[in-house]
Amino acid sequence: MQSITRLLTIAVLFISAGSFLVADEGMWMPQQIPDLAPKLKAMGFTGNPAAFADLTGHPMGAVVSLGGCSASFISPEGLIVTNHHCAVGALQYNSTPQKNLLVDGFLAKTRDEEISNGPGARVYVTQSVKDVTEAITGQIDPKLDDRQRHDLTDRRIKERTAACEAGGLRCRVASFFGGHKYYEIAQLEIQDVRTVYAPAVGIGNFGGETDNWRWPRHTGDWSFFRAYVGKDGKPAPYSKDNVPFKPRQILKIQPAGVKSGDLVFVVGYPGRTQRHQTYEEVKLTTEWTFPRTIKNYQDQIAILEEIGKQDKELQIKAASRLRGLNNTLTNRRGMLEGLVKGGILAQKQKAQKDLETWIAADPARAKQFGDVLPALRALQAEIEKTRERDAVFAQLFSSSTLLTSAQSAYLLSIEKAKANDMDRESSYQQRDWSRIREGQERIQRTLDARLDRVLLRYALGLAAELPADQRIAPLDKAAGLTPGMAKSDAAKAIDSYLDKLYAGTKMADRDYRLALFDKPTSEILATKDSFVELAYALDPMYQAERVADKKRQGADSRLRPRYMQALLQKEGGLVAPDANSTLRVTFGQIKGVDSKDGLYWKPFTTLAGIEQKHTGEGEFDAPARELAAIKAFRGGKKTPFLHPEVGDVPVDFLSSVDTTGGNSGSPTLNGKGELVGLLFDGTFDTIASDFLYDKVRTRSIHVDFRYALWVMSEVDGAGHLLKEMGVLD
Amino acid sequence: MQSITRLLTIAVLFISAGSFLVADEGMWMPQQIPDLAPKLKAMGFTGNPAAFADLTGHPMGAVVSLGGCSASFISPEGLIVTNHHCAVGALQYNSTPQKNLLVDGFLAKTRDEEISNGPGARVYVTQSVKDVTEAITGQIDPKLDDRQRHDLTDRRIKERTAACEAGGLRCRVASFFGGHKYYEIAQLEIQDVRTVYAPAVGIGNFGGETDNWRWPRHTGDWSFFRAYVGKDGKPAPYSKDNVPFKPRQILKIQPAGVKSGDLVFVVGYPGRTQRHQTYEEVKLTTEWTFPRTIKNYQDQIAILEEIGKQDKELQIKAASRLRGLNNTLTNRRGMLEGLVKGGILAQKQKAQKDLETWIAADPARAKQFGDVLPALRALQAEIEKTRERDAVFAQLFSSSTLLTSAQSAYLLSIEKAKANDMDRESSYQQRDWSRIREGQERIQRTLDARLDRVLLRYALGLAAELPADQRIAPLDKAAGLTPGMAKSDAAKAIDSYLDKLYAGTKMADRDYRLALFDKPTSEILATKDSFVELAYALDPMYQAERVADKKRQGADSRLRPRYMQALLQKEGGLVAPDANSTLRVTFGQIKGVDSKDGLYWKPFTTLAGIEQKHTGEGEFDAPARELAAIKAFRGGKKTPFLHPEVGDVPVDFLSSVDTTGGNSGSPTLNGKGELVGLLFDGTFDTIASDFLYDKVRTRSIHVDFRYALWVMSEVDGAGHLLKEMGVLD
Repeated sequence: MQSITRLLTIAVLFISAGSFLVADEGMWMPQQIPDLAPKLKAMGFTGNPAAFADLTGHPMGAVVSLGGCSASFISPEGLIVTNHHCAVGALQYNSTPQKNLLVDGFLAKTRDEEISNGPGARVYVTQSVKDVTEAITGQIDPKLDDRQRHDLTDRRIKERTAACEAGGLRCRVASFFGGHKYYEIAQLEIQDVRTVYAPAVGIGNFGGETDNWRWPRHTGDWSFFRAYVGKDGKPAPYSKDNVPFKPRQILKIQPAGVKSGDLVFVVGYPGRTQRHQTYEEVKLTTEWTFPRTIKNYQDQIAILEEIGKQDKELQIKAASRLRGLNNTLTNRRGMLEGLVKGGILAQKQKAQKDLETWIAADPARAKQFGDVLPALRALQAEIEKTRERDAVFAQLFSSSTLLTSAQSAYLLSIEKAKANDMDRESSYQQRDWSRIREGQERIQRTLDARLDRVLLRYALGLAAELPADQRIAPLDKAAGLTPGMAKSDAAKAIDSYLDKLYAGTKMADRDYRLALFDKPTSEILATKDSFVELAYALDPMYQAERVADKKRQGADSRLRPRYMQALLQKEGGLVAPDANSTLRVTFGQIKGVDSKDGLYWKPFTTLAGIEQKHTGEGEFDAPARELAAIKAFRGGKKTPFLHPEVGDVPVDFLSSVDTTGGNSGSPTLNGKGELVGLLFDGTFDTIASDFLYDKVRTRSIHVDFRYALWVMSEVDGAGHLLKEMGVLD
Repeated sequence: MQSITRLLTIAVLFISAGSFLVADEGMWMPQQIPDLAPKLKAMGFTGNPAAFADLTGHPMGAVVSLGGCSASFISPEGLIVTNHHCAVGALQYNSTPQKNLLVDGFLAKTRDEEISNGPGARVYVTQSVKDVTEAITGQIDPKLDDRQRHDLTDRRIKERTAACEAGGLRCRVASFFGGHKYYEIAQLEIQDVRTVYAPAVGIGNFGGETDNWRWPRHTGDWSFFRAYVGKDGKPAPYSKDNVPFKPRQILKIQPAGVKSGDLVFVVGYPGRTQRHQTYEEVKLTTEWTFPRTIKNYQDQIAILEEIGKQDKELQIKAASRLRGLNNTLTNRRGMLEGLVKGGILAQKQKAQKDLETWIAADPARAKQFGDVLPALRALQAEIEKTRERDAVFAQLFSSSTLLTSAQSAYLLSIEKAKANDMDRESSYQQRDWSRIREGQERIQRTLDARLDRVLLRYALGLAAELPADQRIAPLDKAAGLTPGMAKSDAAKAIDSYLDKLYAGTKMADRDYRLALFDKPTSEILATKDSFVELAYALDPMYQAERVADKKRQGADSRLRPRYMQALLQKEGGLVAPDANSTLRVTFGQIKGVDSKDGLYWKPFTTLAGIEQKHTGEGEFDAPARELAAIKAFRGGKKTPFLHPEVGDVPVDFLSSVDTTGGNSGSPTLNGKGELVGLLFDGTFDTIASDFLYDKVRTRSIHVDFRYALWVMSEVDGAGHLLKEMGVLD
């Protein structure tokens, strides 16, 4: 399945895929679609391409972001469909050891039974996108140093955002083409989201990790939410009195579905691609970042699986983290295979060499661009000097929710003390305060000191092994670690430090923790909570890194747009920017593909595959009522949700659309803009398309919405939702 | 890969596949081929079908049996091609820890370098096949009891065999259609067989157990032998002075190969199929025999893998047994899947019910056949009463080569003492004496008391756990075992018994053992060798089983031909008998197949798959020189051995021909009778075709001979063999 992790990458550069008419590459900005009319026509599209540029019209107005996943409105009463794997957090939030919605699924028979997805759950409806490049990058004094440059840009972005949000919307100024362009995006932010229906895990995650990113696939990866707003129709936090949101646009379901060769569109919020990174950046990822991540995640998975055996509560609490780790692990393995064995790194090297040759071949170009690549290289070399330390430093926080909370409370108190909101660090401005609080409420359901401790213990072990010139000094001091220490001694020191840490904290207590976020700095420090003390001890290093990072961002904003310019000049043509979690449109065809030598992947899977894969245990455990429904179907029971050419109910299908993590849950539309499926995954073989799109082999995986309709009517008794969607009268 | 084990099944019944014109089912007797002319013509065959009935003509005269595998002559100088997995025994026989031909492969650059496959290696060239049904089954007094009936038939077979062999050939009277027909087959028996060429294991067994029975496949499953005879042209044991055999017929290689849709023939010696067994027999296999075998083989594999770690010599000695166990294990799993999940058992049940209804529907038929099925059922019920004990009893001998040798020497001495060769038990007649001796010589290379002991220990453990009413009493007495004994006590008793057994034997010594086979019974017993004593102690039970078995065979020969007659009458049409290790012809088309839901298996694999699968270790470790040759080919080096439509060198291909274990090494011929490949495997999905041919999904796997030619010329430097085959001038 596609990763829902947002990668924290600032780099976006562009390498064209040549003539755009031959490939299905491109996560297009909606406003680019009208320019693609010739290609769309060639692919058999008879509609109006300009419709895609109208963000509040049909179909764009129906497509929303959940923050990390995509989704769409499918009824006038605010019904939303997204992936099952995008609902894991919500299901987990509402699960107990006695009633595990993750396992059993959930169906609200009435509106009253719909359950809150918890604080922090959001639905974002994009209202407008505005080019603000000049406002952000215009008239910058070339004499500014990198840090000043960063601060100026940062300030401009904050000011624009604030002005935009004055209208009551949520706004973001996003960088495209590595800072070559900036757009201001305004979104309606719905804050009361509820779960309506999710199938059992034996449907929603059938095949589990074994089938994740794989084809043939038989996953029923859908779930249904509903957006609620205040009685005044405006976004409001969860309240019993809230009413269903009336979306301006909804998608119509097309129960007749699609067939091989059909044109399909996917509209959604792809997270991050790296197609425009420099060779050196891809090389670092290939040779260091991914191998490290793979080892690291394997270890963490083993740790969580082990501790999950202790009791059912821990298992539920660890579930969503485990699913995320496993998903990313598989993803990184696939990426690495594509980069190394698939030869993408080598192709990147060649492309960059070609660019350098092209720049050097013309004196004017050499003058304009000649310094860019060496400077980007130097910038990267600087980062690499402390990469081990920086990675472990970051992992301390990602491992321990308690530590992150303590740090967050401390940093918030510092920023709150500032008089002017514009002076506050981004993520700690007034606009962020309520979501910081919601985040702290939300984590309570997955928070467990035992989980926290085993992962922090692992991170401390890594810190203990850092080379002498890359130590985390305050941690060494606190935990009594020294470079080159014997492993067993380090383990002892760590365990005894952890005993003290977890004995000396109340951060796991909800009320205690939330109260901390309302306190001034002095009172926070006066608690002497052990995690506050650790966060405080680590703060000087954190601040130093933040400063260095701002300097680097300033340098990057000076260099990368010129690099992008060079690339654009060299390649020409209409080009999609790298994904950046903004609304995009991609289109392609439903088609199979030659997989490994001797194997062809057919474009559709069917119920037959569920019967074949079902073992009755583990990841291949279809619910008994589904098997019974299949049996009834085999016995002659009619269904309108057949794929006539295939002669069975279709389950999942392949298409050549260009997607990545964040696209999960995106509606798949036919040529008329009707919903026919949900995008939910890519194929392991072409995961590395995030770095370089493979024109022949790249495929995305969709759940065929006929399968959802069949399960809802024949298995899960969700006929009332079919009615609501207008599928049944 | 296909099993080379001969199953000891006497039952063969017939269920027609309906109109034979639609299916590729049928391991046809050569004399049936002319009757299939319409079907062949419909499939595009333009040759003369009658040619297949001429066993000494082309192409039939070129196809030989190696006893368990098939092969063919491909040069006037007696060059033979078969599978690599059929050469494992010979390669093992010639391997040492220092020079492991199994791993490194072997190539004789000259005739002098060709190495003997060891005593017992054989090439059988079928000379004639004669219907002797009347001579074997005619004029049998209906008043004879079952034992008498067996003895009469047995005597007739022995007499005919002796008369036939008087001409200097090796003869066999084989039963077809469960004793409904008998044919006398005369074969030239070549006794000096040498290894000429075998690729490295990274080609010959590329993919190993992981890929065994699987598609897509990339195994280079070929090896080359040469048949030698005395200077007089007659078969003779190995001698330096022997000369290459001049075959009457040879197969021409067609280096242009085949393509999808082409008609292909496979000629060879399929071992055993069970398509005509009764429902109850298949049920027993499904519910008891196969599950037991699977558990049993898993255990033995674990034991052998463990002991193989001790040293390299043990590993080599265990290799071929391990490969056989693994192969059968996979086979049985696939069979079981087909029988249960694939629904074959259910189809068998239905077919038998239909037959019974058909019999009962007509009074004359009811009179003629009404008693047959109940009687066969009663016969089987008798066998099932002691199935646990009988299985363990047999396993004592299959586990311990030393015990089998001791038993064999003892039984031989008893039979030798008889004055008339016709009175001797089959397998102990004069005609068998030299091969018994050769067998004892041959086993020396794999014999090791440590291996022998761990497997016998396992079998003794099973004996200890037998229920009280199915004990092996003499073993209980010898080893001090009692029913219901605590497991740990039994283990102790067994280990102490094994200590005594292996301390008290010299059977592992070649000369000592061979000498035993020349001694009279009294002298053998006087050795007091511990294994002789054990064999002697077990003999009364062995004899009792032999008598019961003869009685059962007599009953079977009375009943089964009538059952077969009923089936033939019900179904009608031209029908191939179940396989019985006699020469057969099967034909079909090269074609891919829909595999699991969403997957299509293309008919050809290519070098690209070797590059994809190569990991550099374990079962996926292509030789460096092969990878270099692929690289050179990718770099533009020309080869005549391309598949033009596929654009690569083909490796393996699929066809719809109907084959089974024993067919391994069979030549695959194009419509002109030219060699284009070697049959070497079936697909896991349709292994159970041995019980019921699947008209849609059954496929056989062949190595494309172009791959062999490419490896020989580009990788292994075997150009002289290409020249000898007439491929290169």
